[in-house]
Formats: sequence, structure tokens, C-alpha cells
Amino acid sequence: MVWGKEIARNLYGLSGDMRIQYLDISDEGHLILKVGNHEIDLYDLMTKNDLPGAHIRILPLIRKMMDQVVEAFIRAMKKHNSKLGFIPIYPLKSNSSKIVIDTIWSYGEKYNWGFNIGTIPEAELISNYSNKKPRLLVVDGVKDKAFIEKLINIKNNWEVIVDIESERDVEILKEYPEIKIGIRIKLLSTTRSPWSKSSGLYSKFGISLIDLENIINKYEYLYDRSVLLHVHAGSQIPSLEDLDKIIGETVSIYTHLREIGLNNLTYIDFGGGLAYPYTHFKKGSGFSPDYTLEEYAELIIEKTTDLEKYGTKIVFEGGRYIVAPHRITVSKVIDVRPYGVRPRIYEDIGYGIMDEIRKAESLKELNNVLRKIREAITRLTSRTKASKENRVLLEKLITNIEYEVSRKVEELLSRMKLDEFIEYIRYPSPLLEYLITPSMRVFVSFSIFNHIPDKIVVDQYFQVVPLSRLLEKPEILAILSDLTCDSMGEYGDFYSYVEKPFKEKLIPLDLLTSTDKKLLYVPNMLVKLNGIPLHIPRKGEKYYLAFLETGAYQDMLGMNHNMLSGYPEILIDIIDGQLKIKVVNKSYASKYPV
Amino acid sequence: MVWGKEIARNLYGLSGDMRIQYLDISDEGHLILKVGNHEIDLYDLMTKNDLPGAHIRILPLIRKMMDQVVEAFIRAMKKHNSKLGFIPIYPLKSNSSKIVIDTIWSYGEKYNWGFNIGTIPEAELISNYSNKKPRLLVVDGVKDKAFIEKLINIKNNWEVIVDIESERDVEILKEYPEIKIGIRIKLLSTTRSPWSKSSGLYSKFGISLIDLENIINKYEYLYDRSVLLHVHAGSQIPSLEDLDKIIGETVSIYTHLREIGLNNLTYIDFGGGLAYPYTHFKKGSGFSPDYTLEEYAELIIEKTTDLEKYGTKIVFEGGRYIVAPHRITVSKVIDVRPYGVRPRIYEDIGYGIMDEIRKAESLKELNNVLRKIREAITRLTSRTKASKENRVLLEKLITNIEYEVSRKVEELLSRMKLDEFIEYIRYPSPLLEYLITPSMRVFVSFSIFNHIPDKIVVDQYFQVVPLSRLLEKPEILAILSDLTCDSMGEYGDFYSYVEKPFKEKLIPLDLLTSTDKKLLYVPNMLVKLNGIPLHIPRKGEKYYLAFLETGAYQDMLGMNHNMLSGYPEILIDIIDGQLKIKVVNKSYASKYPV
Repeated sequence: MVWGKEIARNLYGLSGDMRIQYLDISDEGHLILKVGNHEIDLYDLMTKNDLPGAHIRILPLIRKMMDQVVEAFIRAMKKHNSKLGFIPIYPLKSNSSKIVIDTIWSYGEKYNWGFNIGTIPEAELISNYSNKKPRLLVVDGVKDKAFIEKLINIKNNWEVIVDIESERDVEILKEYPEIKIGIRIKLLSTTRSPWSKSSGLYSKFGISLIDLENIINKYEYLYDRSVLLHVHAGSQIPSLEDLDKIIGETVSIYTHLREIGLNNLTYIDFGGGLAYPYTHFKKGSGFSPDYTLEEYAELIIEKTTDLEKYGTKIVFEGGRYIVAPHRITVSKVIDVRPYGVRPRIYEDIGYGIMDEIRKAESLKELNNVLRKIREAITRLTSRTKASKENRVLLEKLITNIEYEVSRKVEELLSRMKLDEFIEYIRYPSPLLEYLITPSMRVFVSFSIFNHIPDKIVVDQYFQVVPLSRLLEKPEILAILSDLTCDSMGEYGDFYSYVEKPFKEKLIPLDLLTSTDKKLLYVPNMLVKLNGIPLHIPRKGEKYYLAFLETGAYQDMLGMNHNMLSGYPEILIDIIDGQLKIKVVNKSYASKYPV
Repeated sequence: MVWGKEIARNLYGLSGDMRIQYLDISDEGHLILKVGNHEIDLYDLMTKNDLPGAHIRILPLIRKMMDQVVEAFIRAMKKHNSKLGFIPIYPLKSNSSKIVIDTIWSYGEKYNWGFNIGTIPEAELISNYSNKKPRLLVVDGVKDKAFIEKLINIKNNWEVIVDIESERDVEILKEYPEIKIGIRIKLLSTTRSPWSKSSGLYSKFGISLIDLENIINKYEYLYDRSVLLHVHAGSQIPSLEDLDKIIGETVSIYTHLREIGLNNLTYIDFGGGLAYPYTHFKKGSGFSPDYTLEEYAELIIEKTTDLEKYGTKIVFEGGRYIVAPHRITVSKVIDVRPYGVRPRIYEDIGYGIMDEIRKAESLKELNNVLRKIREAITRLTSRTKASKENRVLLEKLITNIEYEVSRKVEELLSRMKLDEFIEYIRYPSPLLEYLITPSMRVFVSFSIFNHIPDKIVVDQYFQVVPLSRLLEKPEILAILSDLTCDSMGEYGDFYSYVEKPFKEKLIPLDLLTSTDKKLLYVPNMLVKLNGIPLHIPRKGEKYYLAFLETGAYQDMLGMNHNMLSGYPEILIDIIDGQLKIKVVNKSYASKYPV
């Protein structure tokens, strides 16, 4: 099979453990959202509503993630015969949109799901919710007296614990005996998280162990009132080995604090860190972890089971994992332009080089020519400064070369064996670089600064999938440009990893895009492409792109660059077994061209 | 003079060409804002209003910057006897707050100041302004038909020019003969701007020269309707040499387009790029350029004077330069904690190492000990994982070492000559690293993500100045932590450059902070410190920090991390010669602890 549903699922990352549960490809080649027993054709949804783009919010996915977390921990506890307590809490910082908090708060009733807050506005938001049973509210830090008094006034069945991190905090809380104390400790164990500065002795949060001991000696009330040990080693921790270190260190500190007499220290909160798999492969690199939710839960239970004797309750503080998948951002393609110069042959220029390309009889020879060309172009570009004539020559030369190389790649690959090609492409080379570089620039009706700001903030990976034509092999590799007047408003990250075995016979050309002859994938090999595999919209055709899993942090970090903020939203929910689809904020559509 | 107003001015970057015009230090050691003939004590302003922080907006500074730009170009034109036209425009993307646009629009009347927009919401905003005389409106790109129709409906005396960047753009504009055409071309010249990807053949914006020529051949209407050549090589271009290349290339293309018959091409717009001096020294590095506004204007006029024959008008599109200084962000310090562990001597640990430090008889010897210690600590840290006992030992060891090194530095420096110390400190060493590392962490009542987001987005430098105690030598080097639950919410960048000659005799200890013995400055040498030189607030003392020049982009890029957005604002203006000070958005104060 040269191209088909199975390869498309793989290429666009739909085959991972998570996505396979809620996304699929229809027989029409559209991206399908699966919610309960319902299937929603996302392409039809967008075209029917005639929107330039939208955040599609799938509320049942939040509930599904909550279920999965609880189930994973219950399974792990059963396996280890553990009698530990388990309490999940949701940190508002991940997403404090009202609809998200409403969903977690209501559905969380059955799990007694608590919350974690860090600022005054978050406290004000949470004080609007009143619970039937007491729920845990873990507060990051004391801030000031006014804040503590605000917390005391939150009745509504919240069990409030406030972290101390400095002597000033302890001094302030002395006067408020109704507040329970959390101890936030600095971890020494460092991780390879993008937020790795969250741990270590010089990290922003927490207190060192000896500073804590000195404070405990000075403020005796801490012996009785301390109920929680809190650590945080960074968001999106990539490896199980890192987690193992963190949990081990925390358990050791917890045991010590119990031993010195903090007899009410019953909660242990490992903080965030459970990584969401933003890619469909588990390599512990980029933005996916090398472990599953199951392995995460098991590691924690395994390493804490000995704490049963203290009546310890494990607090799960995952925010990203709960809300990441619930928002899919969809945006319309509005223009397609060349990446550099529109490919075309100019007969009057570059005979020599063109001839060398044409004469290449193997990838190796072509590679050598490409290396020479790259050096020559660098030299020419730096010399070409002010002269308009040279510039035209240079542009013609570049477009000629690209045209000719593309033809030569096609020619050489058409008479090559697959294995030979794979072997050759395994190592870095000018040819590989050429093959993973986009040929087109696609303008999309959105703002990277507003809709996926973490691309700007931490260079985060978001999986891009076209909503249609998925049964057609992609035609081009393209970089995506947004509507802002900012050169940072571009996105071209694509991890290509197709690992299913191929029964049918493939030829090398099957691995390339059909129009610009760029690399799509290499079987069983992870390749980072610098452009997104796409189709060129036909005249009048509506072509949409989905950015998956934009539900964590992106709502909060969205920037108003060029006054582009807000997007239409499509809310998807199941209420009493009925599928409900509702478009809100439709007026924002008028900010975006179609 | 060991410490005094002059050194404080230098250390805190108040002595540069720009800041000297609007900031000073009072005899009380407070930061003073100079507006017209008025002096405003910013410390008194903050304490009187009892705010946790505020954006102080100084509207006369926007007008001053507008004046200075126009005057610089007029002077340059006089000098070269130039008969070029000159039209300034303001790009809304830099800051589209209503008060900013109002100010530029009203005061711009006398200069016929135009605007530059790129998106639909920006077009809607600008359509609210109706001008007495026609003003230029340069629009970045076509977007879609609805957008062009919106532009046509903006009457109000705007002269609308829309840039083309692709064949689709030209196809759309064909149907709207009332719209004038701008040509946005890709520049080959690259720069060392933080936004350097704005130029080059593969940049997001503009069209290549041969693609343009092919389009001109196909769409004859472009000959008549094209009136503007537009380029943009990136914001905050650091060197005059880079600018020279850009201007040269643009002039060459402009001349060519005139020669092939674009006879109405009278405007030439070099885009943004004029760098604002965020540091007080001109090194063309970090976030300051190696040139002045005067040199910028002169370079442009000098290189374009030959274009007089075409009746060319130079369009100045500076946004950042006009609005950067008008906003000063002030925030209150709420807690001071140790950077790692609170310094203290633990007698039971580390005899050997302590002894080695004590025995060091020169900086060189101390340096060698420090190198050994660094290696030992790295080894210990990685081994210390899970064991609580080892961790306590490690923490004690580190704090002992820091305490002992601090004493040793003081001792050695007290019997050293200044020149000797300067010579030693000139080169990287573990000792220098120790001296520029903060010892304290200061919590500040603000959000880096909301108030200075460009620290996160492009690692931008903002000058920090305490509002008080400026006549006291700083006591500590401190890293600033914000209120977000995010390890990225920290700021410790400080360029120290004190270049005034020192008549009085200095000793090495004068160059260190008074309490933690860290480096403050080295005469005539640029040092990047990893913490801010500050004082430790006394009990009950209000201590505020100013972040200078947050007026460009920060209003637009502010993120809502942890729901911290918005800040009280203090508007400062001079109306009919009277100083007006007004506090607005005061309700936001309740989001921030004091």
C-alpha cells in the first residue's frame, strides 16, 4: 500500500495510545472526532459553520482523562495491595477557563477532586464553588495577610492547606491557626524537563532542608499543623528514570519529617510532572515521555507503599495531563506562496551548476554537488548586498537549482531500491537537509502568539493534521505562517515516525511528497521535518489544519499580538447521552480573514 | 567617592543619552521622573498611592520621541541639502492601547503622522480616527476581500496603501482600483537583530524580486498603481553596518523599479529596525545599538539623497522607538529569601574544605580551591539522590563554603590594590562566577509573563532601578522572582558598566556589595551580573523596583499566566502647562499581594 488510511494515521501521529481513543480518519479522508459512541466529521463541522478557525473544546475528554488517572492509580494500588489514600487535585494554572473548572469541579464530585491555586485571582475564582463533601485546596505560598484572610473566608467545604517556603510565611501563618500547613521543599534531583529549573537547590520554589529544620526548631506550631509535603520538579518530565529520582528523594524527606515528629504530615504531593504525549511515539525526547500513565502511577505506588504505616495519602497534581487534549485548534489556510522563490527554469543562468546536477549518477554524487552549491550560494549571498543585477541572478540561480535537484532526486530514486535509499538517508547530509526543508509557505488564519503561544515560549511541539484529503498522499512540505507581523509567527515542526510494518512493496518515491518531492517518512525511523506535509488547496477549496492538544496553558498564555486574540469556539459535550454541539464567541470570526 | 549619586546613576544605567533626559536621582536617593519643568518623586508617588505596583505611563515622553525623530531627520536633510519628503508612520503592533494611539494621533497632527496596520482588528481601531489632513495608512498585506472592503470604507482622510506579497494579493486588488499598492520585497541582507529571520530569501514577509517581475509582467495595472516600496529587516537592528546594507539594497531595488517604469513609486519605507537603547552603553550588543537616532537619520538621508529626482518621500516606520520609554513598570518587593540555603556556619561539617579556603593567600589560590570545590559539589549532588542524611550534609557544606568564601574574598580584597584586582577579574574564572551570582531571591509583586513578557519571548533586557536608597551602596545581588507558579518567572539580568573616570581613590572592596560581597562593577568594564544590585528592605519598609522602558510590545504580549493580568496605571501628562497625575485601573491592585 503506497498511501492509505493506515499510513496517514501513522504519519499524522494518530496511532498513539491516547489519540487512537478519540481521533480517526473517515472513508472520505476527513479527520473524525470520536466522542462516546458518536463520530463527528471535523471538516464538515468547520465548513458547515463557515468559520476561519475555532477552538474545538471536547468536554468529555476532560472527564475521560480524569477517569483514566484514577483508574491507573487504583489498578496500581490493587497490584501492590496498597492501603495508601489517593486524592487528585487540579492546578488552576494549567487552564482556569470557567468551562474547564466547571467540568472538573462537577465531574470531580465522585472522586472528591481537589484544586491547587497560587494567586489571589485564582482564590477568588475557586471561592465561587461550593462542595457537598470537603475537597482539598492546596495553596502555593502565603503571599500576604490579605490573601490568607481571603482563604479563611472560603467556607464552602474546602480543606485549605497553605505551603510555607520562608520564615516570613511561617511568621504570618502563626496568627491563623485555622490554616493547615504544607511544606514545600526544594528537590536536589534535577530532570530534563523543559522547566528543569523548577528543581535544584537554587530553584524558585520551596525551602532547603536545613532552613526548614531551623524554622521548625524556632516555630513549634509546625509540628502539629503541618499536614502536607509538597515538591515540584518541573512540568512534562520526560523520563521514568527522572521520576524515580524525584519520588525517591521526596519519600526520603517525608520519612525523615515523620521521624522527627511531624505526626500529622499525611499528604504527600509530588507536584506536576506527568508528561502528556504530544507526539505519538515514546522516546522520552521532544515533547513526549518514555513512560505511560500506568507506569507513572505504578512507580509512585511502588515507591510509597511503605508509607502506609503513616496513613499517607498520595496527592496527584496533574493539570496538563487532564486538560491538554480537550482543545483542538482548527485554522483555515488562506494563501500558499513559495518558501523562497517560485520554482521555474530560467534558461539564461547557471549552466555549469545545472550540468553538474544533471550529471550526478548517484545520491552520493548529488550530495557532493549539493555541498558545493551550498558553499557557493553562501558566498554569493554575502557578496550580493547592494547590486540589484546580482540579486536577480542569485534568485534565478537558486530557483533553477531547486527545480533541477527536485527532478534529479525523482530520477535517481525511481531507479533505486528502498533499502539502499533508507541506508543512505540515515545520516545527516546536504541531501537530507534539502529533503526535509519546506518548499512552500502556507498562510493560516490564526495567531501563533495567541493560539499556540507555547511554540513561542518553550518551543513546544503541537501535532498538525489536515482535516481533509487524508487519503491523498501529501503534495508538499510547507512552513505555516500566521497573521501577525512578526517573523516568529511561523510553525514548521513535524516529527515523522511511521513504524507499522509494510507488507506491500514500497519504492523510494513512495516516501516523498507527490509534488515537491520532499521527504514524508522513512519506515521505522524518526525524522524531524522542517515543514508540515500538506496538500495544496484547489481554487475555492476550503482546507483546514488541526493543531492537536492545545488545551493546557495555551488559553492562559495567549498573547494579544497585532490585536489578534479570541477565536470562535465549538463546544462539544454529551449531556444525558445526547451529543451537544454549540458554537460560541462566533463574533471573533470577523477578526480573521477567510 | 566610594558611593554617591554619580556612581548610582552609572550603575543603574541612568546616564545614557536617553534616560538622562527624563530620569534622575534626588538628594533623598529617590528615583525622580522629569517631565517638562516638573520633577516627580516616583517613590513618594507609589507610597502615597499605596499600590503593590503600577505601570506609570508618561505621555509627554511619547511626544518627545516623536519630536526627536522628526528633528533628527530635518537636521540630516538640511546637512545634505536634501529635498526628499519625510513622512513618519506608527505601526500599531508596537502598542495599540487606546491612550497611546490617541496621543500619537493628536500630537501627530502637526507632523502629519501616519499609521501602519496589519490585521482586521487594527483596521477597525484606526477607522475610529478621522483626520483633518490626509494621513498615510500603510497596510501589511491583503488578507481577504472583506478586509479590503473594510479599508475602502475608512474614509476619514486616510491615504490607504496596501502591500502585495503574492499573486493572490495582486489578483484580489485588481478589483479595487481605489486602493494604492505597496510592494513588499524580501531583503537578502541579514542582520544580527533578535528578529533576524525577518530578512533573507526565506523570510515570512515580502516577495522575491523575480517573482515580483513576473507578476508585474502579468498584471500591468501595477505600473500605475504602485506607490510604495516596503521592506522590513527585523526589529531592534544592532549595528549601523547592518543598516547600511539594508538601506543600500533597498535603494538599489527602488531605483530598478523606477527604471522599469513604476513611475508613481514615490514612497520608500525602510520598515522598523531603529533600535531603542535598552542599555545605557552603545556596544551594539545585547539590547542596545551601536548608533544614535541622529546617525540613523543621517545614514538614511545620505544614502537616499540621489532619489530626489524621483520626488521620493522617506517613510519612517519606527514603533518601538516612539513608545518604549513611555511606560515604567514599578513593583513592590514582598519577600526576601536565600538564593539556595540561608548562610550560616555549621561547625560539624567540611573541615577540610573550609581549611583550604581559609589558607588561600591570594585570589589565584582561592580560585584553585573554588575550582576543586565546584567539581566536588557536582559529584556529591549527583550521588546524593535519595539519602536525606547526605542531603543535609551537602546543604551544610554548601552554606559553610559560601560563608567562608565570602569572608575570604573580603579579607583578600581588603589588602589588595585596585589595579591588581581589576586585572585579575578581567578573565572568566570560578571566582568571577561566584562574584556575579546572586545570594538572595527577592519576591516581587508582579508577573513577568504579564508585565515584561519579552523577557520570556526574546530574553529581552529591561533595566531595573530601585526607587529608593539610591545613595546607599547596594547590599546584595538578588534574583527577582514573580508571583507565577512558573520557574521561568525569574529575572536577574543586569549589565553593569560604570565608565566615568574616578578621581578619588577606590579600593577593591568599594566594587562589592556591602552585605553579600558580590561584584557591583569594575570601572570602565562591562560586566553582566546574574542578579540585580539591591538593598534589603528593613522591617515595614516599602521597597519598590522600576523596570524601565516597558512601553513597546509589553502591553500587547502580556500573558494571563496564573490569572495575573492587568496592573494599576498611573497616567502622567502635561495639559495646558499643568502637570496631571491620574491613577486608573486601581482595582487591579487587589490581585497582587503587598
